[in-house]
Amino acid sequence: MGNTSDLAEVLADYLIAPDPGAAGLTRAVTGRNEHGEPVSLSVVEERPLTIYLNRQEIVTAMTIGDYPEYLALGFLRNQGMLSPDEDILRVDYDEELETVVVRTASETSYEEKLQKKTRTSGCAVGTVFGDMMEGLEGVQLPATPVKSSWLYALAHKINRTPSLYLEAGAIHGTVLCQQDRPLVYMEDVGRHNAVDKIAGWMLSEGVEAADKIMYTTGRMTSEMVIKTAMMGIPVLASRSGFTAWGVEIAQQVGLTLIGRMRGQRFTCLSGDERLERDMDPRDAPVEAKKHRRKSAE
Amino acid sequence: MGNTSDLAEVLADYLIAPDPGAAGLTRAVTGRNEHGEPVSLSVVEERPLTIYLNRQEIVTAMTIGDYPEYLALGFLRNQGMLSPDEDILRVDYDEELETVVVRTASETSYEEKLQKKTRTSGCAVGTVFGDMMEGLEGVQLPATPVKSSWLYALAHKINRTPSLYLEAGAIHGTVLCQQDRPLVYMEDVGRHNAVDKIAGWMLSEGVEAADKIMYTTGRMTSEMVIKTAMMGIPVLASRSGFTAWGVEIAQQVGLTLIGRMRGQRFTCLSGDERLERDMDPRDAPVEAKKHRRKSAE
Repeated sequence: MGNTSDLAEVLADYLIAPDPGAAGLTRAVTGRNEHGEPVSLSVVEERPLTIYLNRQEIVTAMTIGDYPEYLALGFLRNQGMLSPDEDILRVDYDEELETVVVRTASETSYEEKLQKKTRTSGCAVGTVFGDMMEGLEGVQLPATPVKSSWLYALAHKINRTPSLYLEAGAIHGTVLCQQDRPLVYMEDVGRHNAVDKIAGWMLSEGVEAADKIMYTTGRMTSEMVIKTAMMGIPVLASRSGFTAWGVEIAQQVGLTLIGRMRGQRFTCLSGDERLERDMDPRDAPVEAKKHRRKSAE
Repeated sequence: MGNTSDLAEVLADYLIAPDPGAAGLTRAVTGRNEHGEPVSLSVVEERPLTIYLNRQEIVTAMTIGDYPEYLALGFLRNQGMLSPDEDILRVDYDEELETVVVRTASETSYEEKLQKKTRTSGCAVGTVFGDMMEGLEGVQLPATPVKSSWLYALAHKINRTPSLYLEAGAIHGTVLCQQDRPLVYMEDVGRHNAVDKIAGWMLSEGVEAADKIMYTTGRMTSEMVIKTAMMGIPVLASRSGFTAWGVEIAQQVGLTLIGRMRGQRFTCLSGDERLERDMDPRDAPVEAKKHRRKSAE
């Protein structure tokens, strides 16, 4: 970050930007380096959060710990356990118990299904995956165009945004964008959590999905593609790579998948028809070496 | 890889090395680049594998698909669902059904626990995590020394080993090592799967853990630390970073945690007493730029 006005410009678009200085997200840990000299390192936190749907315990997620209510809401929605029109009464986070309870007006169809499943085979762990694929069946993604100039602008802004990644590493980032503007930038130890937090925010705020672009620092696996499609967002972009099944699902649901976005280059493996290449790649901003993400992995 | 004798030297230590050319692990996918020109990309596969313990469905993992029997065995062992002295009768993989069934001589204590849990709250998803921490209670890690010269040699050999990562990216690698020798190198779309496959191999072959070092390309989260400790391996090393809870657990169980291994540098945040700095870092092999891992994330 060159100076204060640069920073102000980079942060101007955000509704929620990372807050790398926030208490409780990182911890100073001491150790020794290769010479045996004492060193102090800032490392990201990671804590369990158990998510309940009404009286039903659903899962324990490992999370950095910010926005637990969004994480719970978004997780349940992205797993197809909450339908889009579910009447959500309350979301209660208990910091001491490390739990979030999402309460709906009536028992959800997921709880019914879970009880049935439980009676037959004893546990529903394996159904979670099947439910996600099932949830995709009704998904229709809009034909919203996406311009290559937006993609270049987004990458340039996001790479320069102060983040926990730049502060402590070992973390994934996901950014909800609209045209060339990054709106909500979430980070977490698991990339799925970062997406779920965005989904929870969108659900809470009643934000439209049709004109949005999802940007992630991580790989576009089947899970990432399914979650993005479940959210109704037609475009998923990443500086990282693909898995074959992620590509296959994107092609099936008609989601635009753009990967390996580095500097002036990118590859589109699904939904190319949404993409307007309105900018000569040679005019795209060059990635400064210091802003290139090293491996978060 | 400079030439064939270099390659032979790099592969000499391995009992199992990656087989990036194997059928079914990658797929050629076509798309378009930033100019709209057609491109073909090699991307890694990702498929569901449902793991059963006797008649009990446990979990559906997303995996690249090699070594399904090792993955199932290692997963169950690392979750504390199979005790170290469990009498395993058979492991049956069904490629068409995408299932692996691990059969034990008698019902395991985990199945009993699961049934009890199921009766009270309907599902055991949330108990998986608690079980893992519980499994750590009896763990005693041996005081085996680790030399910094081994760490440098391991990183140098592993970085030059042909792998799916170098072939297609978007994948994690984990390597079981002994002194300066990499023995078993597993890769998978999820880094936890790569570790579980190593655990399954060790269980199948009756391999001793006390003199081993675990090397991973990925972050050392609580999950990675717990799995390594569950396997009885006293040292976990990575070119990537840490999470605070990963460090805390490592310190509790006395596991040596060495991260940010890049070229001549590293940081030790736990169990420094095992580490013998027997080599001047300036004498360590320099990382060739082409072998530096880009972000798999």
